[in-house]
Amino acid sequence: MWMSRCARFVLPALRRSPPVLSVRSSRACGRPSLLSRPQRCGHHTLGSASLPEPGRSVRFVGALREERLLQVEWEDGGHSLYPFTWLRDNCQCPTCTLQSAQARKLLIGDLDVNVGLGSVELTADNKVSITWQDQHSSVFDCDWLKRRCFSAAARRAVQEELFLNERLHWDSSLRVPTAHFQEVLEDDEAALAWLLALRRVGLVLLQGAPAQPGQVARLAERIGYLRLTFYGHTFKVQDKPMANNVAYTADKCSFHTDYPALDYPPGVQFLHCISQAARGGENLLVDGFHIVDRLKAEDPQAFHSLSSLSIDFTDTGTDYCAFRLQAKHRVIDVNAEGNVTRINLNNATRDSVLDLPLEQVQPFYRALRALEDMMNREENMATLRMEPGDIMTFDNWRLLHARTAFVSHLDRPRFLEGCYLDWDEVMSRLRILRHKLQRDEA
Amino acid sequence: MWMSRCARFVLPALRRSPPVLSVRSSRACGRPSLLSRPQRCGHHTLGSASLPEPGRSVRFVGALREERLLQVEWEDGGHSLYPFTWLRDNCQCPTCTLQSAQARKLLIGDLDVNVGLGSVELTADNKVSITWQDQHSSVFDCDWLKRRCFSAAARRAVQEELFLNERLHWDSSLRVPTAHFQEVLEDDEAALAWLLALRRVGLVLLQGAPAQPGQVARLAERIGYLRLTFYGHTFKVQDKPMANNVAYTADKCSFHTDYPALDYPPGVQFLHCISQAARGGENLLVDGFHIVDRLKAEDPQAFHSLSSLSIDFTDTGTDYCAFRLQAKHRVIDVNAEGNVTRINLNNATRDSVLDLPLEQVQPFYRALRALEDMMNREENMATLRMEPGDIMTFDNWRLLHARTAFVSHLDRPRFLEGCYLDWDEVMSRLRILRHKLQRDEA
Repeated sequence: MWMSRCARFVLPALRRSPPVLSVRSSRACGRPSLLSRPQRCGHHTLGSASLPEPGRSVRFVGALREERLLQVEWEDGGHSLYPFTWLRDNCQCPTCTLQSAQARKLLIGDLDVNVGLGSVELTADNKVSITWQDQHSSVFDCDWLKRRCFSAAARRAVQEELFLNERLHWDSSLRVPTAHFQEVLEDDEAALAWLLALRRVGLVLLQGAPAQPGQVARLAERIGYLRLTFYGHTFKVQDKPMANNVAYTADKCSFHTDYPALDYPPGVQFLHCISQAARGGENLLVDGFHIVDRLKAEDPQAFHSLSSLSIDFTDTGTDYCAFRLQAKHRVIDVNAEGNVTRINLNNATRDSVLDLPLEQVQPFYRALRALEDMMNREENMATLRMEPGDIMTFDNWRLLHARTAFVSHLDRPRFLEGCYLDWDEVMSRLRILRHKLQRDEA
Repeated sequence: MWMSRCARFVLPALRRSPPVLSVRSSRACGRPSLLSRPQRCGHHTLGSASLPEPGRSVRFVGALREERLLQVEWEDGGHSLYPFTWLRDNCQCPTCTLQSAQARKLLIGDLDVNVGLGSVELTADNKVSITWQDQHSSVFDCDWLKRRCFSAAARRAVQEELFLNERLHWDSSLRVPTAHFQEVLEDDEAALAWLLALRRVGLVLLQGAPAQPGQVARLAERIGYLRLTFYGHTFKVQDKPMANNVAYTADKCSFHTDYPALDYPPGVQFLHCISQAARGGENLLVDGFHIVDRLKAEDPQAFHSLSSLSIDFTDTGTDYCAFRLQAKHRVIDVNAEGNVTRINLNNATRDSVLDLPLEQVQPFYRALRALEDMMNREENMATLRMEPGDIMTFDNWRLLHARTAFVSHLDRPRFLEGCYLDWDEVMSRLRILRHKLQRDEA
């Protein structure tokens, strides 16, 4: 059931072929699926807005000289307004735009922010042609203009298209989306479906990878490149002597995001199971954004503490090379509108240096414990026991992951290989694939 | 004169040897040096706070049970207070701390945030020993405790030590700090002096590098590693056919920071002159933080617009691989206290998609033009004409750089090689070098 919804919500570009994304239950329990009543969140939602359809044409164009606005009336009714200065700034002629880079050549210093419009006309091929008072002329395509309409609804729609900020928040009823490793490598539609679900749900399990090192790097290359860190290009999660990270032991790891000791923690993590433990070693997962929703509702004071107090993270050791890292983060990062944008929590690397006034220390600990208890409620967490060849791909800004303690097979230690990417690279590949497939479809 | 101040301000760890950092004037003009009256900025300043000196000992230790605080009185007078919960959370015993990673093993779920203190005593070797009500015991070193004092002054001092947020804002009177490329590679004190000046002034010119590709990568390896981007591990700034970036032409580039089309623009840039132009090709530089000071004072409305309105940046093309990037930034990034933390401005990649309500468009352009005019005032900019073998190393979050148009030698095109790093890696190396040299000195 969730699959069909998933297909409807996250795969709008894949109408021609059956969805390549399948789902599976990671738990035996039969709770009603939260995702059958999807919670759409994020500060950009499509709502009533929709992207302008291409090919619309202009009925009339005229200047509101007093207001310094160009008015465009569309054939299908409705109108758009464009400031003179913005139009001049975005002149698409070869003098003002470097076509090969699709970048602005016009310098700010050469832009007259009080530019005067001489005349405007609609050309025979339905373009808007402007002659400025200094005789420079600019020609704008209708679709180009329509897409850049300044109405709140049009801007919302474009921002959602560019950033896909809508999220499906989930709890223990999540059926983890899955895809096939090899298909994702070879098939553009499978790759796009994977990245769309990764963006929206925050978690996709890829199956069928060879149970040997090097696969997360192949997957990163499918996107663009991985992010090198002090733990190397990729990292090996194993029980190691003189471990330089608590993940490199056989102990339980509590819910955490990776690497808040970096000022910019990695956006996406791949974790490939090459050899699983004899006992234990399950991965537990929570949707941090869902947890924040719950915390905000049930314990607003804890939410306030964790979204306002900055605390220090630290990480010192030697791996790819020696490192001494320090960073300050709020556990719950919120934007100007108060919406959560990232979770930063790693108890192992939370610094003993605590830069808070004395009276805020105990409220901070109380809030941290409230968050921990919220994450550990059965109703909020998903459990995943990876098999060799499984690759967990997940949003490290949003999900928190934990691991139960484990005992390895005597002859074969538990072994995962991981790597990091940034959302910029993942979203870039997602946009390229979507653009390519939409073009193929057209 | 500035050198001695620089040595005093930025090289406190280098008392044993003569400062390796030298300065030179990049301009012929004889304006009085701004840096002889240093403006100390940033939200963490040492002020009256000072780091605790090591080796101080405890006169008395006792519990304020009602307030759940441990009180420590120091031999030199003064006292510090520590919350019980914080002490228990940071127990340094092998059960609670993974010594090999210097990381916390104690889980939040196992931390009693209402932990009761059984007894506390001062040991013969002047350590604070606590037995908790559940019989677990924790022993704390005096220096370790003193460093973590919760007083505002002590916290300020530790934060300044960890992050070195103090900046010297500069104008056209800047004498660009210089250092020797080979010395920086081979000598730890020279490397530390370089990184301290890079952090504080935002710009250091390294001289004497071989005039061939590969040197910026060597410099990045001196620190740790460079940051791969869609423009490759390193990038070649040359006039290229079908340029995928306006920097890859012979045209003038106006003041910009690199790569605001990334959600996290690179913190540091290295730019190595391998072959200079026959005419033109000078680099112009401004201290963005100084510019923001001026703008705030002279045109608060422009400051308000640029520090509150988020605008879109975009970059599409193919280089290391194909890319379609989108990011939203305020031109002037400020923190919760209203202090500037980063400048994001690149007119070439500023998107024609402008996600602002119609009535904010013209004020935004007016503000952008005001910023541009402020940067282009002679009194604010430094000029640097690199010679082959020079490497400009600078803070890409703070400085804006521009380039005059150029004409290459017929047989030898102008050629710079560049690369990016993040501040995390640079600061990590800085802390390691400082720690090592302080230890050598002790």
